[in-house]
Amino acid sequence: MMNALGTLLIPLAPLLATEVDVDHAPLVLAAVLLSLVIIYLASKIGGELSRLIGFPPVLGELIGGVVVGASALHLLVFPESGAISADSVIMTILHWMSPLTSEGMASVFESQGEVVSVLAEIGVIILLFEIGLESDVKELQKVGDQAAIVACVGVAVPFGAGTAGLMYFFNVPTIPAIFAGAALTATSIGITSKVLSEIGQLKSKEGQIIVGAAVIDDILGIIVLAVVASLAKTGEIDILNVVYLIVSATAFLLGAILLGNVFNKSFVFTANLLKTRGNLIIPAFVFAFLMAFIGNAIHLEAILGAFAAGLVLEETDERKELDEQVKPVADMLVPIFFVSVGAKVDLSVLNPLVPENREGLIIAIFLILVAIVGKLVTGWAVFGQPGINRWAIGIGMIPRGEVGLVFAAIGAASGALNKPLQAAIIIMVILTTFLSPPFLRLAFGKASPEAESQGDIAQ
Amino acid sequence: MMNALGTLLIPLAPLLATEVDVDHAPLVLAAVLLSLVIIYLASKIGGELSRLIGFPPVLGELIGGVVVGASALHLLVFPESGAISADSVIMTILHWMSPLTSEGMASVFESQGEVVSVLAEIGVIILLFEIGLESDVKELQKVGDQAAIVACVGVAVPFGAGTAGLMYFFNVPTIPAIFAGAALTATSIGITSKVLSEIGQLKSKEGQIIVGAAVIDDILGIIVLAVVASLAKTGEIDILNVVYLIVSATAFLLGAILLGNVFNKSFVFTANLLKTRGNLIIPAFVFAFLMAFIGNAIHLEAILGAFAAGLVLEETDERKELDEQVKPVADMLVPIFFVSVGAKVDLSVLNPLVPENREGLIIAIFLILVAIVGKLVTGWAVFGQPGINRWAIGIGMIPRGEVGLVFAAIGAASGALNKPLQAAIIIMVILTTFLSPPFLRLAFGKASPEAESQGDIAQ
Repeated sequence: MMNALGTLLIPLAPLLATEVDVDHAPLVLAAVLLSLVIIYLASKIGGELSRLIGFPPVLGELIGGVVVGASALHLLVFPESGAISADSVIMTILHWMSPLTSEGMASVFESQGEVVSVLAEIGVIILLFEIGLESDVKELQKVGDQAAIVACVGVAVPFGAGTAGLMYFFNVPTIPAIFAGAALTATSIGITSKVLSEIGQLKSKEGQIIVGAAVIDDILGIIVLAVVASLAKTGEIDILNVVYLIVSATAFLLGAILLGNVFNKSFVFTANLLKTRGNLIIPAFVFAFLMAFIGNAIHLEAILGAFAAGLVLEETDERKELDEQVKPVADMLVPIFFVSVGAKVDLSVLNPLVPENREGLIIAIFLILVAIVGKLVTGWAVFGQPGINRWAIGIGMIPRGEVGLVFAAIGAASGALNKPLQAAIIIMVILTTFLSPPFLRLAFGKASPEAESQGDIAQ
Repeated sequence: MMNALGTLLIPLAPLLATEVDVDHAPLVLAAVLLSLVIIYLASKIGGELSRLIGFPPVLGELIGGVVVGASALHLLVFPESGAISADSVIMTILHWMSPLTSEGMASVFESQGEVVSVLAEIGVIILLFEIGLESDVKELQKVGDQAAIVACVGVAVPFGAGTAGLMYFFNVPTIPAIFAGAALTATSIGITSKVLSEIGQLKSKEGQIIVGAAVIDDILGIIVLAVVASLAKTGEIDILNVVYLIVSATAFLLGAILLGNVFNKSFVFTANLLKTRGNLIIPAFVFAFLMAFIGNAIHLEAILGAFAAGLVLEETDERKELDEQVKPVADMLVPIFFVSVGAKVDLSVLNPLVPENREGLIIAIFLILVAIVGKLVTGWAVFGQPGINRWAIGIGMIPRGEVGLVFAAIGAASGALNKPLQAAIIIMVILTTFLSPPFLRLAFGKASPEAESQGDIAQ
């Protein structure tokens, strides 16, 4: 009945609208609200379908984004990817409701894209804050050496092989090659731990090494991203700059961890002092956003700051309650990131029927091979553990995910990655994530699937 | 140590920045992050100080906004209020970190203002959704007639007296006079029920009538706002339009309530079907944002749609869990609204030392008198209740709040309210909210202050 009412009344709206181009604010809000509805529908339908057929929901959110975005339905398109107002189905709907001049349309379209992009960026900041908050620095120290060596090999091999291969086989320039190589490095903690818990192997020795390595991997990946993104910005490789970035990124993260115990107490003290609503979550966001701002300001990445903030607060007594409260906020904002990443990709640049696309397609196949082999070898980096399931560890490290997508998004935004390379990275993330769960089940043999609730960050 | 690190490294940043005006996106994100940090600090410091001296926290958030905004510190200023980039302390900081051309600065400043404004609007949408979710349609039916008559008198008298007084004594044009009169109507459910629970009178007969009337009042207020805001947009009073708006606003709200029982089951069914994260909150937001979009599309207000969505979901079995999950999201987004409203006001237009300000000041005093007297008389509208505390009811209806601020914000955005009138309304909201708690305590006599946890929407 409500929909019938809406349908009945909407046609009246243009008759009532006498002003044109006077005030865009209500139209920008309307465009953002419609975008959010589309994003949420795409993320939920994609996520649920993905879960139904046994894949991680985050994969479905990404594919949902591809479906509603520039590749297919054009419901959600962005000016920064070169789309114009007339390409957007949302703008067409708004134009039909309240006719605007084409300049007015362009301005509303521009603003809507900007707002949704910032919301997506806040979403990924919250995601990395949540990952930091759920990382257990102490638990990590137990798996120790094994996880560290697996992580280092798993970063070095794909990065080296990917960058070198792109430069020597495909004549890709240095900066894009380094960026694409870097995008191959980070294993997804969320996807990996989710799959392990689904097959009941989270607590096994292999499972612990995989998760430990994935955590270190993510940290290394974020440092690599910070270094590479900054290189992409300045456009040249300046050794002094590289040293500055590695030192500052490492100091930033280690400083945050060391600072944990000190900051800890003042955070808990402040939160206990406050008696009004949001007494826990607002100080936490002030800290996370401030760290994100500092990360951005010292030419690293905002997400590195948010991750460091999460690691610091992970050590507080309030961690559990805070995590509980951050969850709904993450549920609201994180899908905006995943769906936007999918929506901004134009998969048509990989259409094999168009001859000039074929090189991009071959690059994509190359990246996927490097991504798989580069992580598989990590199983053989484990030492002093006779009888360990090396295949399982290697396969467990294969899924990329959040961080890989962050690489693709930042690379595209900074101009370092052209469209075929960006699409190739997204395809690589999607395929590695698709392939890992069934092969991981195979590698572990017939493990009874337990329903564990851990590691549900990507659930 | 982290701060020391930041301070140490920030001066290096300009040296490392070689590109100028190439890509604004990271700067817009940095500006938004800094804005959020300032907003949260202002809201928490203001809210806590307000609570400490016995006033509702929302008042402190508003005053915190005034302090960081256009009236004082200029940390948070908006292009739409006529500020330029150089007026903004945030932009000055960003400019110092990465030098930009003045056009680049203006564009980043514009985008930042737009993003923060949309975040504030999403905040007020979530607030009204939450108020709807916490309204109890069935509880309301018990207090019934008494509350309804109090509400109607409390809307009609201030609206009539305010509008007529402004037009005949001060020669204010019709549309602004109607807008300012409408801003006098809505009692704040949040503030009122918070104060009543603080003095242990929430369950008394007077308390129940006040809360019931405040709920009806808020609904009437939102309908009045929808009608008035639309009048302000078209700039003229068209009887057909007024009838259309009253009918559509009423149909929209009543339709939503009647729809409740039907929609109820399909919502619970959908939420139970979903197994991935956000299975409750995402469908709820899809519904709320879609209703907000429809409210906006049929030329009512987005918040009316959000409120209706809240009323519908209030009747579902999942209400309690949903409310639990919406709280942190509201904690994060609602302060952006209150602080922004405060920040956009320029109180200097009421400075009595400037001669041309005096008329605005006299208007403010007039509005405050009408706001107080117009609600005080509602106590005498109660019938068939011998011995009822009429003063207490009248005083209990005085605090304006959220909805009054929404009026001021929408009025200013639509251009219907000039700066002195808008400032006068904000002063009216602040003063009525300041005055009510002590007098309410006085009217109820020496009631033992119980610590109740109800009605903590404004806590």
